[in-house]
Amino acid sequence: MPMPTDPPAEPGSTLGDVDTPALLLDLDAFEHNLQRMTFAVRGANVRLRPHAKSHKCPEIALRQIQAGAVGVCCQKVSEAEAMVDGGVADVFVSNEIVGKRKLARLAALARRARVSVCVDDAGNVADLDAAAVAAGAKLDVFIELNVGADRCGVEPGGAALTLAQTVTAARNLRFAGIHAYQGGAQHLRSVTDRRSAIALAIRKARATRTLLEESGIDVEIVTGAGTGTFPFEAASKVYNEIQPGSYVFMDADYNANDWSNLPQFEQSLYVLTTVMSTPAPDRAVVDAGLKASSVDSGLPQVAGWRGVEYVKASDEHGVLKLAPGVQGPRLGERLRLIPGHCDPTVNLYDWIVCVRGDRVEAVWPITARGAVY
Amino acid sequence: MPMPTDPPAEPGSTLGDVDTPALLLDLDAFEHNLQRMTFAVRGANVRLRPHAKSHKCPEIALRQIQAGAVGVCCQKVSEAEAMVDGGVADVFVSNEIVGKRKLARLAALARRARVSVCVDDAGNVADLDAAAVAAGAKLDVFIELNVGADRCGVEPGGAALTLAQTVTAARNLRFAGIHAYQGGAQHLRSVTDRRSAIALAIRKARATRTLLEESGIDVEIVTGAGTGTFPFEAASKVYNEIQPGSYVFMDADYNANDWSNLPQFEQSLYVLTTVMSTPAPDRAVVDAGLKASSVDSGLPQVAGWRGVEYVKASDEHGVLKLAPGVQGPRLGERLRLIPGHCDPTVNLYDWIVCVRGDRVEAVWPITARGAVY
Repeated sequence: MPMPTDPPAEPGSTLGDVDTPALLLDLDAFEHNLQRMTFAVRGANVRLRPHAKSHKCPEIALRQIQAGAVGVCCQKVSEAEAMVDGGVADVFVSNEIVGKRKLARLAALARRARVSVCVDDAGNVADLDAAAVAAGAKLDVFIELNVGADRCGVEPGGAALTLAQTVTAARNLRFAGIHAYQGGAQHLRSVTDRRSAIALAIRKARATRTLLEESGIDVEIVTGAGTGTFPFEAASKVYNEIQPGSYVFMDADYNANDWSNLPQFEQSLYVLTTVMSTPAPDRAVVDAGLKASSVDSGLPQVAGWRGVEYVKASDEHGVLKLAPGVQGPRLGERLRLIPGHCDPTVNLYDWIVCVRGDRVEAVWPITARGAVY
Repeated sequence: MPMPTDPPAEPGSTLGDVDTPALLLDLDAFEHNLQRMTFAVRGANVRLRPHAKSHKCPEIALRQIQAGAVGVCCQKVSEAEAMVDGGVADVFVSNEIVGKRKLARLAALARRARVSVCVDDAGNVADLDAAAVAAGAKLDVFIELNVGADRCGVEPGGAALTLAQTVTAARNLRFAGIHAYQGGAQHLRSVTDRRSAIALAIRKARATRTLLEESGIDVEIVTGAGTGTFPFEAASKVYNEIQPGSYVFMDADYNANDWSNLPQFEQSLYVLTTVMSTPAPDRAVVDAGLKASSVDSGLPQVAGWRGVEYVKASDEHGVLKLAPGVQGPRLGERLRLIPGHCDPTVNLYDWIVCVRGDRVEAVWPITARGAVY
């Protein structure tokens, strides 16, 4: 895979040699998170299929699979292609794919990996089947059910049944089950609110599964869940596959959730930044702005400093406010930022620099970066 | 330059063949904007040095230069390298560059193009000079003056003079002038507020220029200004170079400014998106979310549709709300979105698809995409 920018570091170098801003992965924390998730789902009779939209990096996907995942989820055909190119054999595109060009690529991909996809429209089922027939491919298809997020998906009940019947009648499609992801619940701060939202999603998924099975349609898999709620879906006896993504990295927005009595994940993802200006006693400026840390879910946080707050992001600058009396970082000093939102931050970088303590152990290409198609 | 993703279209194809989401450039509007800017500065005795951080695309930079620009600005060394690689002979890095690795690259670049840079710290001047000496290069250096944005830059007065003297004393640096950019003024909505903020910036720049000249330091260039304010700097008789960037594209945030009696630029930049789900009478979902249109300065707007509002962005989805009674777009229909903020949106893409009417005329690589170092 050609990468347009040079890597910001070489394996074997030290953290001080990494050019900034750079995306850092703390390998100890990352490996802890992999193990923690394996432990969290052990005995729950659910399969783990992590969402690769968070990391877009086959090296990470392969480590998730090594830790017990059955494959990964993707949101885009080009993202799925990057995962298959990187050695992942089983990819679920947990999204609707619309348009001839995309459908042809999806069907072609299904000839070299196990590929599944979502639908929420009968016309789209016909287009998908036509693409599969044209490519001589078979596709596993999930109906997407709206379980409260009010984004895509059919409503529970008759609409879901009719759509599932349409899939079962298609020539080169195999009905695989129900995709029931409640995205709106993931960042509700209180555990109680997340649990309540997922209880409703579980009821809708269960009723739909029952309706389909009573109509003679076998529902092999009910899939969904994210980092914020997966213990609830995993314990539901309705969902038998979960799709958390952010747990490998975490971010400031997820860290702001209450995690009482839930599995704890460690912050493993950082943006390494350099202080490029110290123009006033109460202000320092770092070289990581909007284009280095996505601010859609809030500004990044400065790790390991008290009284130093990231208060303003412009395109290529981050302004730090120093509390009165705080001796701030020096010009040229490096800081670690915790991104507000991991997924779109990772999508800004071609490389992720993997560190253990002060040492760069590897530099992995983020081959699905920019894979929006 | 290797590009990691395939282009979403080929020259000669039609708009209907462009894979989505894709970054579109309406060439008629783009060319109008180039001409409008040339016309706006004609006779004002200011040089035009557009900011390439907005487009990151040498093809666009070369057209700006053809329309009269003296070169471009960049914010990062790697961005400047991409511009020089793309044929731009004169690049001003309008930012402080800190760290040995970056300084060595900057100095190396100065051996194959005219390169200038900002400073706001005496220690950094010494490091910069050492890098220039080591590379056998000469660099033009601007002192950055804080004229109200409270980001980087020295304060007007004695601090500015001392720093300028430090530059003039350095072996391989040439003092080129004052960088006095008021970024905080660009998006003040009212013309009056923008004019007032720039009036203060002009006073500070003028006083500093006078102080330096009275101390025997020739101030060849006073540079600054953005799309929101450049007519004021251009008319100031203090600034003799302006740095607007967004004018080539425009965006929803800039369009929300009042432009009474100021040069008008047209929206030339769009994100082309496909309706991927029509799950409810009042809702449609498009395939362009956070990773396709940066939301740091607000959500994108749907061009050409009344009663259709982009109300929520998630990673790869945009939720459109349809007003009561509005017949919304069909599944598979393509829409043009006006990004909230052009610069970070462009930075998400490897390619910009240049269209005239319904026809794809060219597909340009955004070679400085991701050039954060």
